[in-house]
Amino acid sequence: MSPHTNRRIVLATRPQGAPVPADFRLEQGAVPVPGDGQVLLRTVYLSLDPYMRSRMDDKTTYAPPLPLGGVMPGGTVSRVEVSRHPGFREGELVLSSNGWQDYALSDGADLTPLGASSHPSYALSVLGMPGFTAYHGLLNIGQPRAGETVVVAAASGAVGAVVGQIARLKGARVVGIAGGADKCTYVTGELGFDACLDRNDPQFAQLLAAACPDGIDVYFENVGGAVFDAVLPLLNEHARVPVCGFIAHYNEHGAAAGPDRLPGLMATLLNKRVRMQGFIILDHYAAGYAAFLRDMGAWVASGQVKQREDIIDGLENASAGLIGLLQGQNFGKAIVRVAD
Amino acid sequence: MSPHTNRRIVLATRPQGAPVPADFRLEQGAVPVPGDGQVLLRTVYLSLDPYMRSRMDDKTTYAPPLPLGGVMPGGTVSRVEVSRHPGFREGELVLSSNGWQDYALSDGADLTPLGASSHPSYALSVLGMPGFTAYHGLLNIGQPRAGETVVVAAASGAVGAVVGQIARLKGARVVGIAGGADKCTYVTGELGFDACLDRNDPQFAQLLAAACPDGIDVYFENVGGAVFDAVLPLLNEHARVPVCGFIAHYNEHGAAAGPDRLPGLMATLLNKRVRMQGFIILDHYAAGYAAFLRDMGAWVASGQVKQREDIIDGLENASAGLIGLLQGQNFGKAIVRVAD
Repeated sequence: MSPHTNRRIVLATRPQGAPVPADFRLEQGAVPVPGDGQVLLRTVYLSLDPYMRSRMDDKTTYAPPLPLGGVMPGGTVSRVEVSRHPGFREGELVLSSNGWQDYALSDGADLTPLGASSHPSYALSVLGMPGFTAYHGLLNIGQPRAGETVVVAAASGAVGAVVGQIARLKGARVVGIAGGADKCTYVTGELGFDACLDRNDPQFAQLLAAACPDGIDVYFENVGGAVFDAVLPLLNEHARVPVCGFIAHYNEHGAAAGPDRLPGLMATLLNKRVRMQGFIILDHYAAGYAAFLRDMGAWVASGQVKQREDIIDGLENASAGLIGLLQGQNFGKAIVRVAD
Repeated sequence: MSPHTNRRIVLATRPQGAPVPADFRLEQGAVPVPGDGQVLLRTVYLSLDPYMRSRMDDKTTYAPPLPLGGVMPGGTVSRVEVSRHPGFREGELVLSSNGWQDYALSDGADLTPLGASSHPSYALSVLGMPGFTAYHGLLNIGQPRAGETVVVAAASGAVGAVVGQIARLKGARVVGIAGGADKCTYVTGELGFDACLDRNDPQFAQLLAAACPDGIDVYFENVGGAVFDAVLPLLNEHARVPVCGFIAHYNEHGAAAGPDRLPGLMATLLNKRVRMQGFIILDHYAAGYAAFLRDMGAWVASGQVKQREDIIDGLENASAGLIGLLQGQNFGKAIVRVAD
């Protein structure tokens, strides 16, 4: 933890199913020295997000796989420690993608100055990638109309919480799904969802049907698994299903056991005229990020959209944090506080 | 076959898997007598289409199930035998939905006059429901651009043949899939597809990959099954998958055996940002049928879109025709000639 040491957490082995601590390795090295036109960045906050699991596999998803020994990727809020770049002054905070390490160099091209943000970690949550994922997927693909029913899982999490709050602002009836009574209480109480169901309840499917008496018009898919199975028969005609992830399947290894659920999905898509669309939020920054920041900035400032953060202290705890996130143990946006 | 007898084929038992002849029953009754404001219709042509299989099951799809003993549904070209309706004269041909029977009454509301059509059965194929299905699904959901690759199965059939020919007109590279060498020869020779693959070839998946060196931008889904499995890994980013049916699964009964292909589909939808959308063509007549008839009428008249018909003689052979259609035994649009 000397200021002259750069700790980094690298991919040690590719997980077989759910990741375990031994899949990660903490390495130490020298703090890099910025050259002319570069800045040295100190990681302050590191975002933990479900997509990190898929990057650990040896297959190309929307990005090439992380090589063994590579630093785990991730969005970060960083402080400029040393600047040899005229555009950045020492001490200022920037949004960066330094991954799981204490320090990194940048030529500035990939940095977004955060200015005098009163809550800089929001750049990793409600005002950052997860918030933009919720905003784009719900409004541009889901397109909820007033009076329609919107269902979102992981409803207390970084994306789901924002999906539901925006849907409420648009006049939809919003039903959340979360793991445990405390999360459900938060989702209906603090976030104002119309209902929230515990996905661990043995009667979950029946409870979901009862909570959606008019069926489901938009299902924001971010978990997959049993939740999806319960949603499918409730979809209304012309329902929209934006797909931004499916945590329940990230840890699966090899072919999933039967029965084969694909024919049932296809029948529902056809008979209910459902539109299902995957998206990767990285595609949409150029066209949509400014509008998102304007709208979401106003909603956050006015208190119409809230975000709970689940702060994990210490880079050395990042791997445990990700393992827990994939099991739904976080309560709010998972963020590692790497430095003050 | 007396002119005073109305033969009708009804649903005798619900099929367990693939339908068998005993699932149908031919009944005879009196020819109905039109009242004031009604016409008596004589069925001339009866369309056989894959959707008929799903109507035989005891479950609501986009329509309620056909009751046991009910007349099998179907689009028909019919001749007005007796008219007690001022809008219809005896001897004229109309498009109707009389189903599998010789005669039916109508008050005219559901009839479309065919005028002096030189090829009236086209109202059941390229200028009717299958052609409109191809046109709407390809152009409004698939949205092929010049230079893109479009793949369609059942390529010599009523829908697939039209999908491919329109895609060619729009400048796409078109790869068809059909069952057997004779169909493939027809699809590339007569219909002008760039390639056509035999789905029964043991090397089918590899051949499909080789025929699509730039991947697949639009997959028009009308069969499901093994074809879909071969298509999935070839889909390009931002591919579009209109879903109008999946013959391969219509005969399935109960839960399909594993492995579960749903997680793989979801991963592809996400990583490739795929849009998959089911549609039922009945929804689109009000908004789109006139434009379809204008465009397709011109293409058919100029020979730019061709249609092969597979004519089955005799209403009593309709059930064998449908059973064969579901096995891919037809070669072109399956139509029963019920009367001259």
